[in-house]
Amino acid sequence: MNKPTNQSEFETPKVTTGPLPSSRKVYTNPKADPTLRVPRREIDLHPSANEPPVPVYDTSGPYSDPSVEIDVEKGLARERTAWVLERGNVEEYEGRDIKIEDNGGATGKHLAREFPTKHKPLRGVGDGPITQLEFARAGIITKEMIYIAERENMGRQEAVENAAETVAQGESFGAEIPEFITPEFVRDEIAKGRAVIPSNINHPELEPQIIGRNFLVKINANIGNSAVASSVEEEVEKMVWATRWGADNVMDLSTGRNIHNTREWILRNSPVPIGTVPIYQALEKVNGIAEDLTWEVYRDTLIEQCEQGVDYFTIHAGVRLAYIHLTVNRTCGIVSRGGSIMAKWMLTHHKESFLYTHFEEICDIMRKYDVTFSLGDGLRPGAVADANDRAQFAELETLGELTKIAWTKGCQVMIEGPGHVPMHKIKVNMTKQLKECGEAPFYTLGPLTTDIAPGYDHITSGIGAAMIGWYGTAMLCYVTPKEHLGLPDRDDVKVGVITYRLAAHAADLAKGHPAAQIRDDALSRARFEFRWEDQFNLALDPETARDFHDQTLPKDAHKVAHFCSMCGPKFCSMKITQDVRDYADTLSDNEKKALQLEAEQGMAQKSQEFVEKGGEIYLSESGEKREPID
Amino acid sequence: MNKPTNQSEFETPKVTTGPLPSSRKVYTNPKADPTLRVPRREIDLHPSANEPPVPVYDTSGPYSDPSVEIDVEKGLARERTAWVLERGNVEEYEGRDIKIEDNGGATGKHLAREFPTKHKPLRGVGDGPITQLEFARAGIITKEMIYIAERENMGRQEAVENAAETVAQGESFGAEIPEFITPEFVRDEIAKGRAVIPSNINHPELEPQIIGRNFLVKINANIGNSAVASSVEEEVEKMVWATRWGADNVMDLSTGRNIHNTREWILRNSPVPIGTVPIYQALEKVNGIAEDLTWEVYRDTLIEQCEQGVDYFTIHAGVRLAYIHLTVNRTCGIVSRGGSIMAKWMLTHHKESFLYTHFEEICDIMRKYDVTFSLGDGLRPGAVADANDRAQFAELETLGELTKIAWTKGCQVMIEGPGHVPMHKIKVNMTKQLKECGEAPFYTLGPLTTDIAPGYDHITSGIGAAMIGWYGTAMLCYVTPKEHLGLPDRDDVKVGVITYRLAAHAADLAKGHPAAQIRDDALSRARFEFRWEDQFNLALDPETARDFHDQTLPKDAHKVAHFCSMCGPKFCSMKITQDVRDYADTLSDNEKKALQLEAEQGMAQKSQEFVEKGGEIYLSESGEKREPID
Repeated sequence: MNKPTNQSEFETPKVTTGPLPSSRKVYTNPKADPTLRVPRREIDLHPSANEPPVPVYDTSGPYSDPSVEIDVEKGLARERTAWVLERGNVEEYEGRDIKIEDNGGATGKHLAREFPTKHKPLRGVGDGPITQLEFARAGIITKEMIYIAERENMGRQEAVENAAETVAQGESFGAEIPEFITPEFVRDEIAKGRAVIPSNINHPELEPQIIGRNFLVKINANIGNSAVASSVEEEVEKMVWATRWGADNVMDLSTGRNIHNTREWILRNSPVPIGTVPIYQALEKVNGIAEDLTWEVYRDTLIEQCEQGVDYFTIHAGVRLAYIHLTVNRTCGIVSRGGSIMAKWMLTHHKESFLYTHFEEICDIMRKYDVTFSLGDGLRPGAVADANDRAQFAELETLGELTKIAWTKGCQVMIEGPGHVPMHKIKVNMTKQLKECGEAPFYTLGPLTTDIAPGYDHITSGIGAAMIGWYGTAMLCYVTPKEHLGLPDRDDVKVGVITYRLAAHAADLAKGHPAAQIRDDALSRARFEFRWEDQFNLALDPETARDFHDQTLPKDAHKVAHFCSMCGPKFCSMKITQDVRDYADTLSDNEKKALQLEAEQGMAQKSQEFVEKGGEIYLSESGEKREPID
Repeated sequence: MNKPTNQSEFETPKVTTGPLPSSRKVYTNPKADPTLRVPRREIDLHPSANEPPVPVYDTSGPYSDPSVEIDVEKGLARERTAWVLERGNVEEYEGRDIKIEDNGGATGKHLAREFPTKHKPLRGVGDGPITQLEFARAGIITKEMIYIAERENMGRQEAVENAAETVAQGESFGAEIPEFITPEFVRDEIAKGRAVIPSNINHPELEPQIIGRNFLVKINANIGNSAVASSVEEEVEKMVWATRWGADNVMDLSTGRNIHNTREWILRNSPVPIGTVPIYQALEKVNGIAEDLTWEVYRDTLIEQCEQGVDYFTIHAGVRLAYIHLTVNRTCGIVSRGGSIMAKWMLTHHKESFLYTHFEEICDIMRKYDVTFSLGDGLRPGAVADANDRAQFAELETLGELTKIAWTKGCQVMIEGPGHVPMHKIKVNMTKQLKECGEAPFYTLGPLTTDIAPGYDHITSGIGAAMIGWYGTAMLCYVTPKEHLGLPDRDDVKVGVITYRLAAHAADLAKGHPAAQIRDDALSRARFEFRWEDQFNLALDPETARDFHDQTLPKDAHKVAHFCSMCGPKFCSMKITQDVRDYADTLSDNEKKALQLEAEQGMAQKSQEFVEKGGEIYLSESGEKREPID
């Protein structure tokens, strides 16, 4: 049951604001359109580092900018509306009336307060380009594309110049990440369907973002009230909280009452794309009885959410009647909620899914608002035993079919993926997705690489996420420690987000993203030089890093100590390096050469000689013993 | 500073005992030697499951067996002494006198209490076989080998018969895990040097265990007092605690005072192999001044630890003078404590490392007690920037050379590995280790796949650990959340162990270990059937799983509820499956065939047809529309 609220009891959501430690929000103006202000975070280092600030991709929106006044009652600035209007092919209109069932029948004190301002929705009209895909195909570079190119570069040019040898060392498995991202590159990737910019024309508050395997790997956090817990205020703060720690976008998976009003507060305050699973709300409108669902109820729900500004919809249109019996002998059957809702409907009516039969109509609706498809994997495996089975792959093939239809209709598409998959089956899954779905971006949950660690499924899945991110997944859907067991609280959301940020980053490194290693190197230098404050500040989670250090060495003096708790002050491995450097300085060129030769030849075949010659080393070139260099 | 203690203040270590939830300790008697009692854990399921208990590899020793009386003052039963004596080629002798410097000069109230019983040490004599490697080469199957074959099988025969289709689905990268482990297979792997049985003849308390890539992947936990924290009592309990959660063995990395006495308490109470880094204690004996180290001090320390019963030694003999300057331009220089101690010594004296020059003598000592080499990676990378560099690989090549010498001398060998390695460089590292070191078992720390997440390095490294375990690493050295920041406490040890257990298990699954998936499948069935108690009990960490469930649904009634907090009671995806099964029962064979055909053909190429035919589905074979099945 949602918490009962009425207009007076409802409090303004308290959200977390302010910069992260030692961080500044920086805005840059792209050359291609200097009127745009593209945010990034810069982490200042201690003066002794004598290094420039470290640029970091920033998902936190205005909440981390102390110069912006946050007023959740007003929502964020609606900057992007002007961009949409300027492009044309849209009209403002009255929009659909809010119905009592939009909030699950909640009335009176049970109804969550409405967002104070009502904005009239926009929709596309005519055959001219409306979606980012249509603009891209028409050769038009939108402001969103310019913004994204600047954002993805993160000062990459300077960074790459400063760290040339770390560039492009990865194994990309066919991804083609350029050294610098240009607006034209963004346009081209969008036109090819290899990337998406989820950006409903009615969500002008968002900071545009791209999802595609030739860009930084993105992560998603799920929030949402459920039938057993949570309130509107909590959900808004969860969104702010998740993006503060690095969630690139957020899915609102609310069920129960007040879905409409909760979502409005989230959208009006969200700097990141918001996704939903519209069938969840549709189900509430028919009192949770799957067989009572109709295409009309679903269609109306789509329009409701399009007008509010939801940026992408999970639609389980690939769950077809013909595939359901393929799940009969599975260990875990159907575990997707959307998939099972549709299975239930199809079985009851003995009809093909209306999501499949009405797919083109769905495309027509979503195109008008530029809502991106996230084609759901309703038959994803819920156990490693079911991974990559015929049910899963049959659905994936259908998703490929539907992708092509959506593209024909001008819609942007990404594809959702598993689930539970042991490590050796992950690559197969990724490769098949790329093939079947024409390289449309893959958006995967985990995958979880084993079933035996409930309570630690952020880790079982973080392993799979890092790997599939490396292999080519464009966005990773986070998993919290509470997966399979309960609803995540604030701490769980943070742990889930940080885990997935590190997995995405590990993938960026392994793919050879030209700018990825900059932060690792800065942190490692800080570590090596005992700049503890810089280590904390460069960490994905500065608070936890500092707290852990405090637990062993709580004093402020230890934050400048040239030792740590592992070895203690007496002998420190890191301190040896100055000795090594001093030593290297004493070597003549000939000595260095001799050592180099020794090191390069390798010792693999020398065992025999060694044994024969009694363990003495440093033979002269003639094979005679000589003294070690000194 | 260690906590001051004197004989009267010193308390008997309190250790954690008792079975894990719903678990029983079971002993089986191998056919090849029915006098042996080989432990495993069996997890009983709810009667409604109608399933046999799930067998689990058990590292916890007698502590989890309520029928064994635990007395830390006496230590565990010394069962294996009889096996060693029966084989012969050993003698009991007086052993070395304990010196004041063995405990870092601690005296009076600063000296930790001695373990009450003093056992005379054994040592090998003559040229007959002493080590497991020598017995294996001589074609002799030891009791340890029989024990291990039974232990690794974990009731595999029945298990494999019950789940035939899950067998050997993995990608093994050249590992050759048989369906059933025989004593002869164990002998053969030992003889080839592809596996080790760390088992000092003076540590008869241990339950024999094998480390090799054709067996279950093992994990290691590090404990040890340090110069800034901890006491004897805590260290004994840490060992018990770590093995309770699944640590296959434990390294005692103590520094500071009381090293000797602390280790004695640990060894006499440890059912798992104990490893050390002898140079740490040697350094304490020369007051922490690396340049004051001598071969004599080191040699004496080796003998001291051999007599106590340490099962494997990390020896950084691959850090050669010629390689030190290769670390000069590294981002993180030398991060191994042992490596840097030796580097300091070599630079001061401008001499080759005494570990390298005296390597054969070290072999002769270790052979007499069957102490296994763990050839240390003193030049491992401490930053992703330094991964797989020339310094690291030069050392690895030398470790290959030393492996062959140790083998010639009859010693068992494993090889330590990195460190910090981004994902795309892990396979290269593993492949090179196998090649250079003649398939000697690899024992890796992590590797950490990114540097940017201090506080979460159990996860950055868990990713690398799962992958390298899959690729062929035989044992994974755990990393706790405190890595780089502080000393792990009890909770950190547990999180580290569970993380590495799940990583090792993910690797076993991916390698295609024939019995690995049994536990996953049992847990997934429990999940599917809402047997909450079984889910908790089958989890790697039942306590945390239950606690997380309680946080959302605290009532006892919810432990039998056929719903969870994610979807709530109204609609549950899992409940749909009974409908699916009912539906499948109604289908005629012809209908199933038609559906099957539909599903198998795949929809990938049908997009064109679909668009042309207006979105109608279920065409008859002649291409005409027909109604969906109903």
